Amino acid sequence: MIEIEVKVRLEHSKARSILKTIGAVQLGVESQSDIYFAAPYRDFAKTDEALRIRSLDGKAVLTYKGPKLDSVSKTRKEFETPVDEATTTQILHALGFSEAGVVRKKREVFSAGEITVCLDAVESLGEFLEVEIVAENEKELETSRAKLFELLKQFGAGEKDSIRTSYLEMVLEKYKD
Amino acid sequence: MIEIEVKVRLEHSKARSILKTIGAVQLGVESQSDIYFAAPYRDFAKTDEALRIRSLDGKAVLTYKGPKLDSVSKTRKEFETPVDEATTTQILHALGFSEAGVVRKKREVFSAGEITVCLDAVESLGEFLEVEIVAENEKELETSRAKLFELLKQFGAGEKDSIRTSYLEMVLEKYKD
Repeated sequence: MIEIEVKVRLEHSKARSILKTIGAVQLGVESQSDIYFAAPYRDFAKTDEALRIRSLDGKAVLTYKGPKLDSVSKTRKEFETPVDEATTTQILHALGFSEAGVVRKKREVFSAGEITVCLDAVESLGEFLEVEIVAENEKELETSRAKLFELLKQFGAGEKDSIRTSYLEMVLEKYKD
Repeated sequence: MIEIEVKVRLEHSKARSILKTIGAVQLGVESQSDIYFAAPYRDFAKTDEALRIRSLDGKAVLTYKGPKLDSVSKTRKEFETPVDEATTTQILHALGFSEAGVVRKKREVFSAGEITVCLDAVESLGEFLEVEIVAENEKELETSRAKLFELLKQFGAGEKDSIRTSYLEMVLEKYKD
């Protein structure tokens, strides 16, 4: 299974009316607070890995994301475990990991047929729309990407608007100086 | 709060009859499987730290133990979080941690007044008895140690029998060659 995602900058007031027009169904709303950690022994920015604690609704999840496995999709190994947020942060600090950055966002999730649409309101960054589809295999990759961009067209967005930078990278870039 | 522990080698058949005589109350029995991890960037044996996943009764806990804080007691920082065992092992492997050793034991826990007594049957190592008391502060340390050795005397054990080596170290020592 391959997850294909495309993210664009888009005002949510505009997105909402289009979601209504195309008959998308709202699945839920989450307030996510993601703390990303830096390892003391390798540079996750260079190795394209991420270690994160996501907190939502009083629950927390520790997630490891491995490097992207190819250059055309965002496919990557991902391992997740529910944890206690406070003590897991203490464990990571004790092991020498430090906080690299925090991404806080409100995520509204919609279903538009086989495509999942997220409206992300990211603290200090603004409003985004993310579309996602799950392909069964590599062969479907191109067809699936085409479907995503076909849907995005209805929101007035195209390939040139696609943002491959992660929210964490955008937050770090913003506060670099 | 300071945890003071003394561990000795002792046949459980002998220990059980003495526990009965002194009126100790059995609190529970646990089958614990502890996987200890080695970090890719520092030697936990040298830094006197430990990172472990303990599994018992289908549940798992990730525990970090910091270096002992002084030379007289086994006081150390300890942080614990419930986790999913399989994915946490995957996360640690992906981060470059490797399995340093496994300690499997059956632990029977008894209460003898303010002292907790554990009968540990450790795979490949044999039978042990561990006594533990919690002191409110440093001042009580000596009194508490004295209480532990007073109880141990009833089991025919003294200061010279005290084992400061951890089960992991004993397991690693055993399979060194």
